Amino acid sequence: PGKGVVVKAADGRYSFGIRARLQLRSTYVHFGDSDTSETQVRTIRLNVAGNVLSPDIKYTIQLAFGGNDFDTGSSSPIFDAYVDYTRFRDLNIRVGQFFVPFDRARTIREFALQFVDRQIAVRELNLDRDVGVMISSSNLFGLSDLLSYQFFLGGGDGRNRFTAYSAGPLTVLRLTVRPFGALDDDQESDLTRADKPRLAVGVAGAYNYRTSRAQSTIGTAFTAGTANYTHLAADAVFKYRGFSLLAEGLWRKANTDVLERTVNGTVTREPTRSGHGYFVQAGYLVNSELEVTARWDKLFSRGPTDPALVQLVRTQGKQLGGGLNLYLNGHAFKVQGDYFYIFGSSGVEPRHQARLQLDASF
Amino acid sequence: PGKGVVVKAADGRYSFGIRARLQLRSTYVHFGDSDTSETQVRTIRLNVAGNVLSPDIKYTIQLAFGGNDFDTGSSSPIFDAYVDYTRFRDLNIRVGQFFVPFDRARTIREFALQFVDRQIAVRELNLDRDVGVMISSSNLFGLSDLLSYQFFLGGGDGRNRFTAYSAGPLTVLRLTVRPFGALDDDQESDLTRADKPRLAVGVAGAYNYRTSRAQSTIGTAFTAGTANYTHLAADAVFKYRGFSLLAEGLWRKANTDVLERTVNGTVTREPTRSGHGYFVQAGYLVNSELEVTARWDKLFSRGPTDPALVQLVRTQGKQLGGGLNLYLNGHAFKVQGDYFYIFGSSGVEPRHQARLQLDASF
Amino acid sequence: PGKGVVVKAADGRYSFGIRARLQLRSTYVHFGDSDTSETQVRTIRLNVAGNVLSPDIKYTIQLAFGGNDFDTGSSSPIFDAYVDYTRFRDLNIRVGQFFVPFDRARTIREFALQFVDRQIAVRELNLDRDVGVMISSSNLFGLSDLLSYQFFLGGGDGRNRFTAYSAGPLTVLRLTVRPFGALDDDQESDLTRADKPRLAVGVAGAYNYRTSRAQSTIGTAFTAGTANYTHLAADAVFKYRGFSLLAEGLWRKANTDVLERTVNGTVTREPTRSGHGYFVQAGYLVNSELEVTARWDKLFSRGPTDPALVQLVRTQGKQLGGGLNLYLNGHAFKVQGDYFYIFGSSGVEPRHQARLQLDASF
Repeated sequence: PGKGVVVKAADGRYSFGIRARLQLRSTYVHFGDSDTSETQVRTIRLNVAGNVLSPDIKYTIQLAFGGNDFDTGSSSPIFDAYVDYTRFRDLNIRVGQFFVPFDRARTIREFALQFVDRQIAVRELNLDRDVGVMISSSNLFGLSDLLSYQFFLGGGDGRNRFTAYSAGPLTVLRLTVRPFGALDDDQESDLTRADKPRLAVGVAGAYNYRTSRAQSTIGTAFTAGTANYTHLAADAVFKYRGFSLLAEGLWRKANTDVLERTVNGTVTREPTRSGHGYFVQAGYLVNSELEVTARWDKLFSRGPTDPALVQLVRTQGKQLGGGLNLYLNGHAFKVQGDYFYIFGSSGVEPRHQARLQLDASF
Repeated sequence: PGKGVVVKAADGRYSFGIRARLQLRSTYVHFGDSDTSETQVRTIRLNVAGNVLSPDIKYTIQLAFGGNDFDTGSSSPIFDAYVDYTRFRDLNIRVGQFFVPFDRARTIREFALQFVDRQIAVRELNLDRDVGVMISSSNLFGLSDLLSYQFFLGGGDGRNRFTAYSAGPLTVLRLTVRPFGALDDDQESDLTRADKPRLAVGVAGAYNYRTSRAQSTIGTAFTAGTANYTHLAADAVFKYRGFSLLAEGLWRKANTDVLERTVNGTVTREPTRSGHGYFVQAGYLVNSELEVTARWDKLFSRGPTDPALVQLVRTQGKQLGGGLNLYLNGHAFKVQGDYFYIFGSSGVEPRHQARLQLDASF
Repeated sequence: PGKGVVVKAADGRYSFGIRARLQLRSTYVHFGDSDTSETQVRTIRLNVAGNVLSPDIKYTIQLAFGGNDFDTGSSSPIFDAYVDYTRFRDLNIRVGQFFVPFDRARTIREFALQFVDRQIAVRELNLDRDVGVMISSSNLFGLSDLLSYQFFLGGGDGRNRFTAYSAGPLTVLRLTVRPFGALDDDQESDLTRADKPRLAVGVAGAYNYRTSRAQSTIGTAFTAGTANYTHLAADAVFKYRGFSLLAEGLWRKANTDVLERTVNGTVTREPTRSGHGYFVQAGYLVNSELEVTARWDKLFSRGPTDPALVQLVRTQGKQLGGGLNLYLNGHAFKVQGDYFYIFGSSGVEPRHQARLQLDASF
């Protein structure tokens, strides 16, 4: 249940799996005098995955059909599309479109979150998906999963971009240490409730040379030129007896605050977006199905950067919240509720946001 | 054949089914001096459905990929996306996006129609799909399917709406009586040709508080405010020895004929759409595969309502037609042809419309 | 491997197959002072195919989800959607949306190409997909596959067109002779490396009466009226011991060079596109997996036709290139690289284009 259907050839050289996921969400926001609500089928996902020719050649396709899943001006539902070659433990190879292996919080897949949605610091500062090549190992040198690394080289302009650029590449290196051995650090919560403490600590750096988008691999496209972005991330996951802690810091800086281009005497000025942020969140499973959670999330802008980012930080840069999760089949069938108190600079009206969600995989 | 492929776990706790449907249509219209034709792949549907964790937790996903299936400004192909909990006979629960349980004619699924397309009265006055919660029973109190009810509470702004509103809910109650017991009233035609008369009579009422769309849950979005709509429906299905009769009346009234908003001294005036209509249609299966059909369909506008609706009624408000269906595998593989004489007020040029269609489920 | 999953009923009356394909591509172009590159998930395809009710009733659905696969203004991913009736060897019937059976190079499916992409002459002058009816035989009179024919009658306005036209039909007739019997002329390369020479020679003619699109079934929609296009094609495929040769000539002429319409005293003038072209390409399989290829490709415009076509021919009308293919699982899993020298009239700066591609079916 929740894993879809998989067909395998007897010799292991071929398999084909298909899976669907559904997310329903209601959001209520109270802000000043206004009360608004929104109820929607947030997304439907279709996953096709398996291996072909050899157990070491794996493929993954994910299509996303929710109204908000589409990029402006594109009708393509392609989220993930990649092929892995996993013959060598220390040198796994992946080509295609997939999550940039940068920070922990963004690379945990959406179905495995312990809140209704991601953190504001992560939504602003992550590197999302890109098209490129990754080499990696989750158990470098075979030291009982102690060390892992990921190195990514890609276009740097994000997913489903169909234009030729004179743009430069995005380079990313991420290192993770797991002092107590393997753990499920690719999902939030400690659903295993194991009696043994588990820890993963990661750091990552990235350089996106000549990108055409305001948030590096996401956001509006620049028309006045390209910018270079430097990214840093550090994160930690700790799990023990149903308790889980996830913390992360993110930092992004552009090489210039404003892009300028003069065409026929008209000057176009476009701001870049520099900022940093962090969050800490924790959860505790009261029993095998019920979890209580809490999160503190903070975003900062840096200097004379994009006024839209400055405004976002000023009005919604601080978010404090808690939630309740009911796991009927782990992350594959769950009901989640959370509440956030969203505020910013003093004197700015705060928001109250409550959300209720059903997330189910079939 | 026609039901797709279903994979089941031995313990009944899980199943996964996938199915596709294809509709090809040619339409010829003669109107005054003009003859136009249109041949197209009208739609392709992909359905994923099954149960998860228990035989009582069911899920249904339907994606629609035809060019006309998309809402303006949206690339999302999501039609249906819901989860049912059917543990209690008298209190089935459904959450997600699905047909609003209002009138009979609209809630019969598209593949099970006995004409090429729906009635003009129903196309104008139905409540289509919405996101919400339904409680229902198809056999209330266990009286041999005599009574059924459906109660729906939803957002009221229709499918795939991704904006926060201060909008109020849509509330719907529908009651059905089946004096001679169970029948297949969820499809048109009497393909069973059973020797026993069968009847279903239904009534429904709905109130859509503060909706943002001109036809209540469908149509253009208002920019000048919201309207409240009251809806009523009554319908009957009768089947006997291959003969089937379907009749329905629909009524919709807005709380105001015009929405007005003044922004910076400019007044925006937007009309709402009030009207009513009815149709009667019948079919007779000459043998197990061939059916002849006839329909009379009439739409009225109410008072000083949307001029576009008044004009539609004036030019195409009366439709008289007949058709022939060849069921090669029931509704799952059929060829349908029909002809309609479309007219309105006296003095308005009539239209002649002929259609030919292949509808096949795989 | 590479054929997806197929479920069959024991009695042969039903089958359902599903398959996915992925194409990743990097393109580098050097032109004058500029170097641009583009890396993308070029396409993801989902195929559903099988038979229903009888082994002779077959259905095929292909959805294409790549960013460039969508028509302007349409969100529909439908490429193919058709039903075949293959009961009679000399009179197979197909209805729906599919490749117009005109020239060889365009009707070879995309996964089975021996270069990264199609020829410029073919991209300009082909008839792509349309909605209609085809009758055909691949073995007319049962003469060991010596003769085949295809006759097509369709709307002539191309795929996924959702408007009523007063447009006339597209009529196509294609004849093929295979003097040495059956061969895999529906794919490029000679992957069989058979010891026996094989040859297929085809000719085709088409007349598209009153089409609304600039390239007959593809391209921009006219607003000033409709044009009539005449099309001719001739092609040959030869294969022997891993060597393959494919050559084709194409010709298209509009009945008028310019469409004119006067609305309220304003004259709209729209050019039609007339031209011809040809290409020759060859490949040789060094061993069962590695192939070297070469191609010469030339496009001409005809007289005072669309200036955009004249400009295309002047700058990119001649293309000379070669490539290397690594077939890990035939056309179902391959890595392809090619290089083209793209030039035109003397004095025009040439382009250098290099491409690398992974094409995999699952």
